[in-house]
Amino acid sequence: MLEKRTYPCEVIPQELDFTRKITISGLIGSFLNTVGNDAHVLGFGTDALSRQNLGWVLSGMAIEMDSRPAEFSKYSIRTWVSSFSGLVSVRNIELLDEAGNCFGRGTSRWCLINYDTRRPVPMESLGPSMEDFTTPCDPPCPAPLRLKAVNTDPVAHHTVVYSDIDFNRHMNTLRYVDFMVDTLPIELLENSRPLRLDIHFSSESSYGQRLSLSMLSQGDTTDFAIRKEDGSVSCIAHFTWR
Amino acid sequence: MLEKRTYPCEVIPQELDFTRKITISGLIGSFLNTVGNDAHVLGFGTDALSRQNLGWVLSGMAIEMDSRPAEFSKYSIRTWVSSFSGLVSVRNIELLDEAGNCFGRGTSRWCLINYDTRRPVPMESLGPSMEDFTTPCDPPCPAPLRLKAVNTDPVAHHTVVYSDIDFNRHMNTLRYVDFMVDTLPIELLENSRPLRLDIHFSSESSYGQRLSLSMLSQGDTTDFAIRKEDGSVSCIAHFTWR
Repeated sequence: MLEKRTYPCEVIPQELDFTRKITISGLIGSFLNTVGNDAHVLGFGTDALSRQNLGWVLSGMAIEMDSRPAEFSKYSIRTWVSSFSGLVSVRNIELLDEAGNCFGRGTSRWCLINYDTRRPVPMESLGPSMEDFTTPCDPPCPAPLRLKAVNTDPVAHHTVVYSDIDFNRHMNTLRYVDFMVDTLPIELLENSRPLRLDIHFSSESSYGQRLSLSMLSQGDTTDFAIRKEDGSVSCIAHFTWR
Repeated sequence: MLEKRTYPCEVIPQELDFTRKITISGLIGSFLNTVGNDAHVLGFGTDALSRQNLGWVLSGMAIEMDSRPAEFSKYSIRTWVSSFSGLVSVRNIELLDEAGNCFGRGTSRWCLINYDTRRPVPMESLGPSMEDFTTPCDPPCPAPLRLKAVNTDPVAHHTVVYSDIDFNRHMNTLRYVDFMVDTLPIELLENSRPLRLDIHFSSESSYGQRLSLSMLSQGDTTDFAIRKEDGSVSCIAHFTWR
């Protein structure tokens, strides 16, 4: 069993939006970098696993942003793994301002895949000692909601380019978020309303693929589905403005 | 007169391309963040100047990348200001690996603008003491080349979206770089050839504007021009693969 770990962060100018606050994808980037770096520090990061031809894949996440920090703000991310079980490991975060107040929280679900077979692998493959890396604390917010892919006429298209792709030549998580957020009315982003975002990734998008984006806004929620040309769903998300 | 300052950097997963090295725009982002943060630390950053209704605008830069660092690489950026003179301040960097070897270098030209009039302001407006912040060392590479905007038929278009814009609602420098790099043959990026990039910014692109990209490759060079719908040039660049 481990204590929670805390990593320092700072909002850098390149992460700012026009309200001088960190963008939604910038804060998600901090989340993912922190849990990725934490796994690296603890010895089960992507770099270590690749020697066994294994890798982590993000299957879903939920993040609640009560506010987004402004330019040059220092904040920290407290993180812990609540479980390695079956096909999923759950990594959690709390966002803390300089005074130690929590201004956001998130939980993410990671699967292990074998790079040869591209199939999921049970957590037990990492050995029995993985339990030692967990912290006996529940996720700080409800698990990612189960979502259905909206099927409205596409409102935007995007072809996956070099700057979108990660080392697997698949579209980077943050680019999916940007693709969706860029389609929202800019007034919604200007007001920086508290937001909960649930997101699921079902199949990877590769370099050169053309994606379409369906969107359905109802009251204070917006649903998105990103599909590939064959109609298969790549990513589903649900934004709730609070 | 000041000594050169050195800031630590580390390649984070979100900055990687499919070769597991930092992207071209990622390394330029480190350059710009470092010189921006250095100005902030020394008291003449965007945050301090905004109280006088002044701001820095990047007018051009040159960067030479002998190589691009890989995932989790630690490197450092050594920076100094070589001049505040007339309408331009010149900020320079050297990229150093962990052993202290230089693997790249750059020089950037910054103008001061008055946010009300949107007009350039001479460096002297900052007071006579700015000379104290310079370091008597030349830029580490030739100044940004004078370039002519190529006028070939556009090969790509882009509408400026939320995730592209900075706090002025103008397209972020790195998004211009991505827009150009995304149009290059991916094989050129796969080989990670040493690169010199010269880039000039002539007029800002705003949220919602539609941009077109002209491109001309000749031997080991590629020229780009990004234009707005009225035909005015927003950005010109010249890539030299070595």
